Amino acid sequence: MTVKLDKNKLYFLPLGGAGEIGMNLNLYGYNNEWLMVDLGVAFYDRLGVDVMMPNPQFIVERRKQLAGLLLTHAHEDHIGAVPYLWEQLRCPIYATPFTAEMVRRKFHERRIDYGNNIHELSLKGHQKIGGFDIELVTLTHSIPEPNGVVIRTPAGTVFHTGDWKIDPAPMIGDPVDADKLKALGDEGVLAMICDSTNVFYEGESGSEGDVRDNLKSIIKTYKKERVFVTCFASNLARLETVALAAQEAGRRVVLLGRSFDRMVEVARANGYLKEVGQFIDVDAAASMPAHKVLYLCSGSQGEPRAALNRIAGGTMKNVKIQEGDIVLFSSRVIPGNERSINAIKNKLIRQGVHVITRHDLDLHVSGHPARSELEQMYDWIRPKILVPVHGELQHMVEQARLGKRHGIPEVVVPENGTLIELFEGDAGIIDQMPAGRLALDGNALVTFDHAVLKDRHFLEINGMVCVTLVLDKKNQLKDTLMTLKGFVAHSTLVDALYLAIEEAFHSVPKSSIEDDGALQDAVQKAVRRLVFQEHGKKPVTIVHCVRGN
Amino acid sequence: MTVKLDKNKLYFLPLGGAGEIGMNLNLYGYNNEWLMVDLGVAFYDRLGVDVMMPNPQFIVERRKQLAGLLLTHAHEDHIGAVPYLWEQLRCPIYATPFTAEMVRRKFHERRIDYGNNIHELSLKGHQKIGGFDIELVTLTHSIPEPNGVVIRTPAGTVFHTGDWKIDPAPMIGDPVDADKLKALGDEGVLAMICDSTNVFYEGESGSEGDVRDNLKSIIKTYKKERVFVTCFASNLARLETVALAAQEAGRRVVLLGRSFDRMVEVARANGYLKEVGQFIDVDAAASMPAHKVLYLCSGSQGEPRAALNRIAGGTMKNVKIQEGDIVLFSSRVIPGNERSINAIKNKLIRQGVHVITRHDLDLHVSGHPARSELEQMYDWIRPKILVPVHGELQHMVEQARLGKRHGIPEVVVPENGTLIELFEGDAGIIDQMPAGRLALDGNALVTFDHAVLKDRHFLEINGMVCVTLVLDKKNQLKDTLMTLKGFVAHSTLVDALYLAIEEAFHSVPKSSIEDDGALQDAVQKAVRRLVFQEHGKKPVTIVHCVRGN
Repeated sequence: MTVKLDKNKLYFLPLGGAGEIGMNLNLYGYNNEWLMVDLGVAFYDRLGVDVMMPNPQFIVERRKQLAGLLLTHAHEDHIGAVPYLWEQLRCPIYATPFTAEMVRRKFHERRIDYGNNIHELSLKGHQKIGGFDIELVTLTHSIPEPNGVVIRTPAGTVFHTGDWKIDPAPMIGDPVDADKLKALGDEGVLAMICDSTNVFYEGESGSEGDVRDNLKSIIKTYKKERVFVTCFASNLARLETVALAAQEAGRRVVLLGRSFDRMVEVARANGYLKEVGQFIDVDAAASMPAHKVLYLCSGSQGEPRAALNRIAGGTMKNVKIQEGDIVLFSSRVIPGNERSINAIKNKLIRQGVHVITRHDLDLHVSGHPARSELEQMYDWIRPKILVPVHGELQHMVEQARLGKRHGIPEVVVPENGTLIELFEGDAGIIDQMPAGRLALDGNALVTFDHAVLKDRHFLEINGMVCVTLVLDKKNQLKDTLMTLKGFVAHSTLVDALYLAIEEAFHSVPKSSIEDDGALQDAVQKAVRRLVFQEHGKKPVTIVHCVRGN
Repeated sequence: MTVKLDKNKLYFLPLGGAGEIGMNLNLYGYNNEWLMVDLGVAFYDRLGVDVMMPNPQFIVERRKQLAGLLLTHAHEDHIGAVPYLWEQLRCPIYATPFTAEMVRRKFHERRIDYGNNIHELSLKGHQKIGGFDIELVTLTHSIPEPNGVVIRTPAGTVFHTGDWKIDPAPMIGDPVDADKLKALGDEGVLAMICDSTNVFYEGESGSEGDVRDNLKSIIKTYKKERVFVTCFASNLARLETVALAAQEAGRRVVLLGRSFDRMVEVARANGYLKEVGQFIDVDAAASMPAHKVLYLCSGSQGEPRAALNRIAGGTMKNVKIQEGDIVLFSSRVIPGNERSINAIKNKLIRQGVHVITRHDLDLHVSGHPARSELEQMYDWIRPKILVPVHGELQHMVEQARLGKRHGIPEVVVPENGTLIELFEGDAGIIDQMPAGRLALDGNALVTFDHAVLKDRHFLEINGMVCVTLVLDKKNQLKDTLMTLKGFVAHSTLVDALYLAIEEAFHSVPKSSIEDDGALQDAVQKAVRRLVFQEHGKKPVTIVHCVRGN
């Protein structure tokens, strides 16, 4: 696909994250160069596919114009696709130390040689990436080192917020630097590309500091009970909170879940968690009194292989959940995960465990800005153009309304693949580029309309039949072998199928009898028709012809 | 399974609905007889299974002791399994007129002869079913004729609430008869079996009357726009509300969705909807001005084949959604349906439609009791024993806590299959009976651990390989046919697979070469191992052996 771009204009092109919460991929174009901001995954749970990501075809076709990839923070929806798409992109990667270390570990785990392509930026640092003049602004979120990005070009300055909130007491990192953001607004910002996740929530998202106070006071109330806490592993401030709350209550902490181990390693290597003592291991904890231990577990979203589900199911070595134990959910329910989370809660409750999710006190706050925070940011930055991203269409349209009502002159609602000209007074979508999603299927990346996924969906619904037709030298049917899988077939249906296959064979005209395709077609149709009639299913039907026997 | 029951004691045995919201099946046992209350389905959306229901094995094995099936109201989770399990049960069915008509239609649709087995009860009616003395108490809910059931036996009186709320202005039917319930409490109730759905909500569930006022005033505000409303089809009061609101705003109503048509037919046949004029059909509406029409659509839960999704996708004949149109969701989001509902909203928003779900005014109220309503009912009935049902374990345990705190002497939390003795002072679970779920798979009912569902799940994740080995008379491998489906196989993998199959064939000892099982086993293992190594998938592998060629 060729697109004619004006060298002197500034473009924004999201390939992921515009119309969905997850798998962010943003491109900025100026003077025949592209800057990529973030490269994330989203999770999927059907058809044996766990992970999906944006289709990067547009930029892969223009790889030489790709000046670099800048990662705003280390959440999976912002960095998760880096190792999967690395081979196709092979460009310099820029990130602050914590994020850079998370990405290096991803490469190591998959034994990918990334050469000297990872460049560490300091917090609040400046960097030239191709012709783009980059400055990082530390914001607050639910992971260390969340960066907003100022992108200065001769065609204007963009403020790309990344994921953010205004947390007056973030616990890890500094609060948002209002003066810096006001100064940026004074300097003049052409366009702000902004997080829409929580636009439907009034007021403010709340502070991590309040959650710390609340968790500390709640955990102290348990004098005898064993306490388990689950939270998002990437929320290092929360992890620290739980550890400190345990320490204050005279409890040692056991970390359960590989995601926690990884997070703690990277955090300590980057100078975080200094007030937190050593964790103890699960075997040591097993022999300690219940009120001397706190288990911090992965799996707040009901992930079947994570620690919490294994504990609930009694399959975690050396952790036996007991009547009277306490499980605190310091997390939210990501839409779509209700069933799996409820299943775990019910499993725990069945064993007499007290499951605490709500309380008079908040046990969780979101990392994304509610409406008042968005309005505060508009006041600081005063962009000419607002482009909402990081949301479904309903969220982005709502943020566009909010921004407009708040006096931002122009708003543009993007979708993945929309090429947007960031030109004051005439900003808008000028073209649609190729975009879409790739599924990680086994070790292959496939589009969601790929035959392998369609086939598996049919197999999931209908089951299958394998037929081998054995023909003698005179093209007579000598034998039929048949195997059924995935649908209920009583002996009468099986008998009827053999009969139908034979009839289908004889229905093929003599002139076509040496054509495997004709035989396969006739048998396939007969099998599917009969099973549908008798049973309401249309099995995937494979026919092999063995000839000349 | 044989169970020794005391003829003089009263038992409660839920086979469905205790530990889940959906597919209710309750049994009451006394003096060698069983009374079944409700027989519902729940919905499922994986593996090609749409509908599931309780496994009735326990009562099927005791069919002669089954005195009858009493249906409390016409929601699918209370009556939906009747046609599927009819053949196994064939017992008298008792229901009030509206419910009875809905069940008769189910039988007709499936061409099932139910003989003279449906017995209509009048509202507030009395009926002897076997040795059980039944009295119906009309409550309020979100469908016409919601009945609570008083079951009198020599061993005590049970009040089975069914689904209920306390709606002071239910719009269809009378408000709850507090005096009647107080009188029942004065008479003395041994046990109350009670709806737990909304036990996590404080206060009251709200009134259908308020929703009516709100919808009327909102719909009036649209002076030019076309208006679409979606709600649950079974909520006849809501349907009436929307129709009356349209009438007041000078709009004619188009019903879109077979579930609405069916509901209106049954409703009119039972004397409901008298104030509502005739609906107009979709072709007539197409030529009318936008502000003269209101479309009432099925599909509030994002069901792909329902009217709303078809309208959003532009595939509904004579209904073209346009920029500026209004779509009101007068419904809640059932957990698990977030994704499909959001997908529709986004589809509508993309076309410039205004989607209204929340407002300063409520557009929906639940049909189940919040905490204050539960406490009110406890005060009226004053049962000696409370058995929460109609909830996940977390809901039932919470209601048990609430009841206990409110002074009910005994609470018993059931699960499906728990046999409970309702004996004052010593109520409790005395045994576990067979229970579980059946999936409607094609035309067959299978348990969820049935091989066909497991096989389809493997097929969904891994895809499949069909291999035919052709052996000559000397047991040499003459030819190999192979078909792959559902995983990515480049030509190098295909070549490697042929090679691996050949190697596997030769690895089988001479002594086993005439054993198909040995060949199949070796080839299966080789194929699965290689695909797993190269691609991370373990395909279902079928091997046919053709011999003597």
